[in-house]
Amino acid sequence: MSKFSYKLQKQSKKSSARAGIITASHGKIRTPVFMPVGTVGAVKTMSPQELKQLGFEIILGNTYHLYLRPGMEIIKNAGGLHQFSSWNRNILTDSGGFQVMSLKKLCEITDEGVEFQSHIDGSYHMFTPEKVIQIQHTLNSDIIMLFDECTPYPASREYAAKSAHRSLRWAKRCLSEHNKYDTDNALFAIVQGSVYPELRRENAQELIEMDFDGFAIGGLAVGEKKEEMHKIVSLMNEILPVDKPRYLMGVGTPVDLLENINKGVDMFDCVMPTRHARNGSVFTKNGRLTVRNGEYKDDARPIEADCDCYACQNFSRAYIRHLINIKEILGIRLTTIHNLYFYKKLMEQARTAILNNNFHEFKHKFITNYKE
Amino acid sequence: MSKFSYKLQKQSKKSSARAGIITASHGKIRTPVFMPVGTVGAVKTMSPQELKQLGFEIILGNTYHLYLRPGMEIIKNAGGLHQFSSWNRNILTDSGGFQVMSLKKLCEITDEGVEFQSHIDGSYHMFTPEKVIQIQHTLNSDIIMLFDECTPYPASREYAAKSAHRSLRWAKRCLSEHNKYDTDNALFAIVQGSVYPELRRENAQELIEMDFDGFAIGGLAVGEKKEEMHKIVSLMNEILPVDKPRYLMGVGTPVDLLENINKGVDMFDCVMPTRHARNGSVFTKNGRLTVRNGEYKDDARPIEADCDCYACQNFSRAYIRHLINIKEILGIRLTTIHNLYFYKKLMEQARTAILNNNFHEFKHKFITNYKE
Repeated sequence: MSKFSYKLQKQSKKSSARAGIITASHGKIRTPVFMPVGTVGAVKTMSPQELKQLGFEIILGNTYHLYLRPGMEIIKNAGGLHQFSSWNRNILTDSGGFQVMSLKKLCEITDEGVEFQSHIDGSYHMFTPEKVIQIQHTLNSDIIMLFDECTPYPASREYAAKSAHRSLRWAKRCLSEHNKYDTDNALFAIVQGSVYPELRRENAQELIEMDFDGFAIGGLAVGEKKEEMHKIVSLMNEILPVDKPRYLMGVGTPVDLLENINKGVDMFDCVMPTRHARNGSVFTKNGRLTVRNGEYKDDARPIEADCDCYACQNFSRAYIRHLINIKEILGIRLTTIHNLYFYKKLMEQARTAILNNNFHEFKHKFITNYKE
Repeated sequence: MSKFSYKLQKQSKKSSARAGIITASHGKIRTPVFMPVGTVGAVKTMSPQELKQLGFEIILGNTYHLYLRPGMEIIKNAGGLHQFSSWNRNILTDSGGFQVMSLKKLCEITDEGVEFQSHIDGSYHMFTPEKVIQIQHTLNSDIIMLFDECTPYPASREYAAKSAHRSLRWAKRCLSEHNKYDTDNALFAIVQGSVYPELRRENAQELIEMDFDGFAIGGLAVGEKKEEMHKIVSLMNEILPVDKPRYLMGVGTPVDLLENINKGVDMFDCVMPTRHARNGSVFTKNGRLTVRNGEYKDDARPIEADCDCYACQNFSRAYIRHLINIKEILGIRLTTIHNLYFYKKLMEQARTAILNNNFHEFKHKFITNYKE
């Protein structure tokens, strides 16, 4: 039913890096891709027009947050999240599993689903796999994520296994619910299993046998060591089908992105560029720079000399530092534009390098210059 | 020396309303004009690009605030406020008299000047007429305001006279300091005298005899009744030269603007459209509407049906209400864009009406529809 497709354009020879094109309900998505996070229907400080000007083809929304505010009735009446937020490109919605677990108002997880309290008003709610799929169809999300338990870290092998098995039972219910809809929207699975390779392998294989449009690697970037993440991502790269997109949830730094592209990942999301921007911290090819610091108060240079973003083309570090210092909103608008441009450009350069057979050199050069 | 000029294009037959063109160092300004307030080098929430797109030809800066933060050294090194803030159209800078008086950290007013404490860190500073002119030249303000005492309201006749006389002595020192500069920038006088017609008349006549490029009416919109304001503005209209622009400082509501255009005023500034926007209150032709209120939570209509601004062309009241409710910055960006567009359009319509000899009808129709 889904018109969703993934075309692998180029597989790097020296690594597992891939360049591809996803075709989703609201247009094409060139991969590897970074997806800005628009939790409650807006990427913080940005307008949809600005996101388009930066060239983003897909952004994230969050089921849990949107379900609580403004609530489904209002978004349904608007005709879905695209119309409500005036964003006519693709939207991927996180299923809420991560928020329900991490916002610590969790009441009970049973096989039926999760009962939780709103972090806003303490009201009680129940998310079942079926309900979460229904909500995402009301949002009219182009890429729907199944509802899982994002296994906390650290977790014992026993708990991780129990959790992954339950997520698998929920995956079947999600797929079954999704198949009731006559829709062009895609449904992605999420692989769990904590840092235990055998659990991850088993979980992935079961999910692969079902009919999902893409595969996310969940339960990482939650506190584990980088080596543990890399081990699991490498394992997934061996197992996951080459003809479907792979999405590493909640990752990460510029170096993380390149390292995981190198391991066959196609899609990423992270609050890092937007959150750092609001703290006055900006990305450059040499690493992050805290532009709100006093040392930049008389610095006439742009954030980055050769950057083509609106902030760098028009404003000095001194001006941006001044704005952030006095809490003028334009300051964090400019750092957000710069950081999102930085991430977008990094993904474009990685993609071009893969297509030109020189991703390995590009990655090496970037990481050599970049101080984390 | 100044290339500044004002050309009266049309004088309304039924009222004192005027349409004109000011030519200043950074381009033409069509009058009547509303100037958005960019206190510390940015109009709150807006980028210079957006202000240009809205069609503004001049914005305000504030001497007192910019002097304290980021400080003159930084702006001087940047080459002035235009370069620092990346705004290449005109800037008018308020002289700081109003802030020094109103921020209540005032220490002492003498004939020499004003000693005051910074509202930020309590440090002591001295503003003299000469220093304030020097600061505004460092800012490279296209329209410099002289340094005066903004007489508080209410003031006894005795105090108002003493204050106006001192401001007059300062006016001479400001003019003398200004004349030391080889500059295209203009210097405007500010008429004081509180609500006492004879003081206002005397003060205006003395200022008119000096060589100023324009005349501001200061010390109004500080708590007096509307009738008192109208009486003073009408008196100024009789006295001030027709070949120089008149600027009513700190005014006002849409109706205030039309009433005072009717009395011969050419220029206005006010924080009202931007401040109301940040409180979730928006202007429409029927009056203000508090879009953050719950009653709009499911309202699919734009703020104003026939409005061409970016907010109204793309977003519903429900979405904007949602954003403001959850404190997403895009919400107050959209209300600010709408409110500034509303003010800009009102001034354009007033100007067109004056040029077409139907300002009286336009004003009557607007005020009839608009509920304050």
